[in-house]
Amino acid sequence: MKIAEKIISVVKSEKKILISTHINPDGDALGSALSLAAALNSIGKKTFVYCRDRVPETYRFLPGYRNVISKIQEALKGDPLLILLDCNSPERAALEKFQFRYSIVIDHHETEKDFGDIRWVDPKAAATGMMVFSLIKDIGVKITKDIAINLYTAIAADTGTFRYSNTSPEVLKAGAELVKAGAEPDFIASQLYETWDKKRFDLLISALNTLVIKEGIAIMHISREMFRRTGTKYEDTEHFSNFPRMVGSVKVSAVFKETGNGVWKASLRSKGDINVAKIAEQYEGGGHRNAAGFRIKTDLATARRMLIQAVKKLGNK
Amino acid sequence: MKIAEKIISVVKSEKKILISTHINPDGDALGSALSLAAALNSIGKKTFVYCRDRVPETYRFLPGYRNVISKIQEALKGDPLLILLDCNSPERAALEKFQFRYSIVIDHHETEKDFGDIRWVDPKAAATGMMVFSLIKDIGVKITKDIAINLYTAIAADTGTFRYSNTSPEVLKAGAELVKAGAEPDFIASQLYETWDKKRFDLLISALNTLVIKEGIAIMHISREMFRRTGTKYEDTEHFSNFPRMVGSVKVSAVFKETGNGVWKASLRSKGDINVAKIAEQYEGGGHRNAAGFRIKTDLATARRMLIQAVKKLGNK
Repeated sequence: MKIAEKIISVVKSEKKILISTHINPDGDALGSALSLAAALNSIGKKTFVYCRDRVPETYRFLPGYRNVISKIQEALKGDPLLILLDCNSPERAALEKFQFRYSIVIDHHETEKDFGDIRWVDPKAAATGMMVFSLIKDIGVKITKDIAINLYTAIAADTGTFRYSNTSPEVLKAGAELVKAGAEPDFIASQLYETWDKKRFDLLISALNTLVIKEGIAIMHISREMFRRTGTKYEDTEHFSNFPRMVGSVKVSAVFKETGNGVWKASLRSKGDINVAKIAEQYEGGGHRNAAGFRIKTDLATARRMLIQAVKKLGNK
Repeated sequence: MKIAEKIISVVKSEKKILISTHINPDGDALGSALSLAAALNSIGKKTFVYCRDRVPETYRFLPGYRNVISKIQEALKGDPLLILLDCNSPERAALEKFQFRYSIVIDHHETEKDFGDIRWVDPKAAATGMMVFSLIKDIGVKITKDIAINLYTAIAADTGTFRYSNTSPEVLKAGAELVKAGAEPDFIASQLYETWDKKRFDLLISALNTLVIKEGIAIMHISREMFRRTGTKYEDTEHFSNFPRMVGSVKVSAVFKETGNGVWKASLRSKGDINVAKIAEQYEGGGHRNAAGFRIKTDLATARRMLIQAVKKLGNK
């Protein structure tokens, strides 16, 4: 039996379904969860969408986002089926304290965990939204405009609106179907990329003013004083390290963010084959080949120097 | 007879074909021209690709770009058929001084011109590349990897890699086919957006440091001194006015660029229904609803004030 068929057969025999996704939810997490909830509602299921953290401003255009709950007690009554989306361990969803009668995992992250009675983990999928899209079609539910907006956002978020290497023909074909069903690419792109707070943009400009590029390595920093002056928080620095990548000669881009007690958090981005996860691992951090991070307790000048040496060492291997 | 069939029948009876596109060529112009040339070569035609201006750095990854000529004399020998791409008047291609035995126009810009023995002008097409893609398929030529890269770039450039409102299901389906044929979305996006000169990025940071946002209007400026200090030119400011659009509250974004003799060139960008072409027209400039420009001879403070008033007036209508 195909895994999707098995999932459908289990889901059909249930009345109450709890859909949960990871903390610090992103577009793929929320879009996947909300589209699956809408599809299951349309075949008569009672659903709850749970995420420990509230829906970030950026995603408050997704149809149904107001139904995302951050308190779980009500949803647990009646012993629901659990579907874990875009992550594959209870810890990632802040669910480790609870017991579930039966659980299904749908995720595209690589993993070593073994949670879930049914595990559908496909690291080749560009987004969990691609898996949910195929599942919803297999269930036989009509892709409404609301479902299309959620799925398109999920896929757009995890492929950088079709700019990353995971943009396969299947991803673009899915995009075409979802636009046909009512998703508006310009509206969604504008929600994803053009809804910054003014103060966040001020922080970006401040950070860019600290930019130094040497031997293909771009380094910026954000001190606590800069956060204070602009009235911003650590979360506001998301995507900052992508900007210096616009410069052709930049191979690695780093942002050092001061967190207090002499600790700096580094976000690294790289182009092509340069594996910044290897650098992050040296400092007990982690991530992927082209996007990784670590923490370091030292002064900024030393942190910078260490990073430059680590990148050079990587290049010499 | 379908217009594409008519074009194909004319093309098949010719030996030598001159493909030309507009001055200041962009991704759609070059990608369309190079893919059509490759397709016609494969059915035994001798082709020339002419553009008065040289291929910008950004597009020097397109297969065949070295074959683009900026001197036309050689190509004119033997009285070739002319195919004008991504523009529809000889003037836009700097061809007004020459006579052609027979000419075909393939373009998606709105127009009032009437040049061309066969005119295929379709403003509904998201890119000229979409029209050329369908034409190449009608000719019956295999979409090689080189053709796919050129066509994908053409379409990606004119849809902002699938972010603009012209991103239809057909556009995404074409993208899917071209990726299947060998175009790599991440490579192409990186060529389009991540090949800036360091000095151009320095100029952007300088410009951002002048940013003021008031009542939804973002204004930056670039003085001659800033160009001088960073070693940049007027062309380096392309896309600058898009950056402040990232701020949610910004409805109109303007960059004033000092050109000398007290003249400032303004580039305007707007979101949604705000028609900045109406503002540009008041100062004898022009453009489209969401992207327009004009020149003004006055001091910067006055120019700023006039713009803010014009935007407000527009809003009150």
